[in-house]
Amino acid sequence: MTLHVDLFSQEMKEFAHHKRQFLEIGRNAGRFPSAVARQGHDGTDVEISVWCSNDYLGMGQNPSVIEAMKEAIDAFGAGSGGSRNIGGTNHYHVLLEKELAAFHGKEAALLFSSGYTANDGALSVLAGRMPGTIVYSDALNHASIIDGLRHSGAQKRIFRHNDVAHLEELIAADPADRPKLIVLESVYSMSGDIAPLAEIADIAKRYGASTFLDEVHAVGMYGPEGAGIAAREGIADDFTVIMGTLAKGFGTAGGYIAGPAALVDAVRSFSRSFIFTTSLPPAIAAGALAGVRHLRSSDEERDRLRDNAQLLHRLLDERNIPFVSPMSHIVSVFVGDDSLCRKASEFLLQRHGIYVQAINAPSVKAGEEILRVAPSATHTSSDVEKFAEALDGIWQELDIPRTEHTRGN
Amino acid sequence: MTLHVDLFSQEMKEFAHHKRQFLEIGRNAGRFPSAVARQGHDGTDVEISVWCSNDYLGMGQNPSVIEAMKEAIDAFGAGSGGSRNIGGTNHYHVLLEKELAAFHGKEAALLFSSGYTANDGALSVLAGRMPGTIVYSDALNHASIIDGLRHSGAQKRIFRHNDVAHLEELIAADPADRPKLIVLESVYSMSGDIAPLAEIADIAKRYGASTFLDEVHAVGMYGPEGAGIAAREGIADDFTVIMGTLAKGFGTAGGYIAGPAALVDAVRSFSRSFIFTTSLPPAIAAGALAGVRHLRSSDEERDRLRDNAQLLHRLLDERNIPFVSPMSHIVSVFVGDDSLCRKASEFLLQRHGIYVQAINAPSVKAGEEILRVAPSATHTSSDVEKFAEALDGIWQELDIPRTEHTRGN
Repeated sequence: MTLHVDLFSQEMKEFAHHKRQFLEIGRNAGRFPSAVARQGHDGTDVEISVWCSNDYLGMGQNPSVIEAMKEAIDAFGAGSGGSRNIGGTNHYHVLLEKELAAFHGKEAALLFSSGYTANDGALSVLAGRMPGTIVYSDALNHASIIDGLRHSGAQKRIFRHNDVAHLEELIAADPADRPKLIVLESVYSMSGDIAPLAEIADIAKRYGASTFLDEVHAVGMYGPEGAGIAAREGIADDFTVIMGTLAKGFGTAGGYIAGPAALVDAVRSFSRSFIFTTSLPPAIAAGALAGVRHLRSSDEERDRLRDNAQLLHRLLDERNIPFVSPMSHIVSVFVGDDSLCRKASEFLLQRHGIYVQAINAPSVKAGEEILRVAPSATHTSSDVEKFAEALDGIWQELDIPRTEHTRGN
Repeated sequence: MTLHVDLFSQEMKEFAHHKRQFLEIGRNAGRFPSAVARQGHDGTDVEISVWCSNDYLGMGQNPSVIEAMKEAIDAFGAGSGGSRNIGGTNHYHVLLEKELAAFHGKEAALLFSSGYTANDGALSVLAGRMPGTIVYSDALNHASIIDGLRHSGAQKRIFRHNDVAHLEELIAADPADRPKLIVLESVYSMSGDIAPLAEIADIAKRYGASTFLDEVHAVGMYGPEGAGIAAREGIADDFTVIMGTLAKGFGTAGGYIAGPAALVDAVRSFSRSFIFTTSLPPAIAAGALAGVRHLRSSDEERDRLRDNAQLLHRLLDERNIPFVSPMSHIVSVFVGDDSLCRKASEFLLQRHGIYVQAINAPSVKAGEEILRVAPSATHTSSDVEKFAEALDGIWQELDIPRTEHTRGN
């Protein structure tokens, strides 16, 4: 008799040395990036500054978002009451989908409970339902993309990260008459670098491929009205489907796709992660709608995020502290060692009240451990300076390798 | 050149005749089951009564839930700001998981964004990570269970719905030393019948199988404190993992599992739908926590739901209107024809302001079309009587088949 409890008990003992510990925090609405962290079993609370949130623009505390949520709760209650098809389509779902379609200049949009289920559900259908489709997927695509493509059952080619020549080599070798889908992100989550969108769009055109662009770390943050990197480059029309999230730049929850009506309809009709689930609470849709509308008309948050990111890039360069890419607000400070990375994260928290989660395997490859730093629009330049100083002291103390030359030398 | 847009445009044209149309509604908080429905393109609003919501107990308008949500928004803002592992673990997530573990008498619990991702993520790990595991799955298990098991890659045997003899036949034929997992629901979503839990628990014991019990249509509604059908039968301990939702009986959003610490830890450490997603908004966790606490100490909502369901069963029996099972509050009124089912749903809405979604293929098999009626704790007995009268008139008008004898004759 082989019981799962015994088997998993054994496995979890072996896994204990790198078990994930979740820091329990309460971000103080109105005072982001300040948060209260519950430390250890004695339950004492300490005030910290969060440097690893995906609420990059601080929209989670935006008064228009908060008011919209509270009004929707008073009007419609807590949950939606059903799946979209069975009693769970609220006015705010419909309004938000219209807003997101207009935001990306697409015919239609569709909401999901999360970015994970958006990628999983949409790609299962878009890649899986057309027999013979071949998918070309960037090597660093997010887990949700990998899962959606796996669940689609479609034939898949992986191109080296951001390597346009490799993509073209692969696509040119396949039969011209097979349906083709290129799947990529604009800003990559763990490296912070940005895809060569114009070149990839050009390949897609030349080889008749459709394109699926994940802009989760870009919507709200880049481009006119915050419509993303493709919009910034003026080539949003070149991407068949744009996928985004309401949980990062827009500070609430949920994911979405925007694209041609026929494709959105297909996903709406066949995607299991869309159909077989309770829809987002009306208050979440209302808050997200307020967030999107706010960021379409306000540059202030984007400007502050950009200034903070550029300042941090400069201060780290001056201190020869290595980071993966200066192309975005995701500043992946390179440590390259599991134990050092954990220690750096612990020291930052204990000595400076700075919370940056250490990113170790399996989220990145062993030997590529990083502190994934995300300055936000709610940090001040003085916060950024203190952060760089704190990091410099820890690099000194732990003897973490530095770059030999500053960037560009 | 074969573009996805062209392919899907063609397919969606062919699919148009049974394209899903979503009724846009706004449930009036404080006045459930009343809602406002937006009708057609002229956008006129009409007041309706919702008879197909999964917010069975009306907890979506419970004052303690609504206040808890608004307080959490004021304290912590709109979204959580990150995944559970990276900056997104709020105090309310931790409190809610503790509450849910205690609620089910298990060592630990784990929250997911939805019931869909809970089943998908938990079963992928529990069935997939132990080499050699054989899964025994009820033929009517929900899509999210089917997807989780498919994604696990585990070997799978389907037993006929609620057929204990068939389950035993299958399990007895497999090698004794293989790890085994029986996966079932307590209350089935589309039939409303209830699994023979004691008999299945007995088989699990005799053959050394672990058990995964989905109680999404039972938690809050049945058993002491609303802990579900297994708790009602006094055998919750016999089920290794109990899975539930916060979106139906508790009126908010999100899914969860509760079980032995080692299993919950394994899911927490390896489940992709748990790891790679932004956590639930703190306000959702706070609202769900208030809902669980309320229903653990109040029987009023459960009693009213039970009374309404029993009254409806009796009134339909008296009118010889067939329904699938009298075992629960899910009253699947049998139509058995796609076109008649749509018409019955339309007539109910247009003539009586009663909203019941027609459930057609592929959600049920062709020829098994139903009106899935869910009376709620917020309906009055007079509402139930009017509903039965309305249904009777439509059965007359559309000449939908009736039962020849009342139940039990």
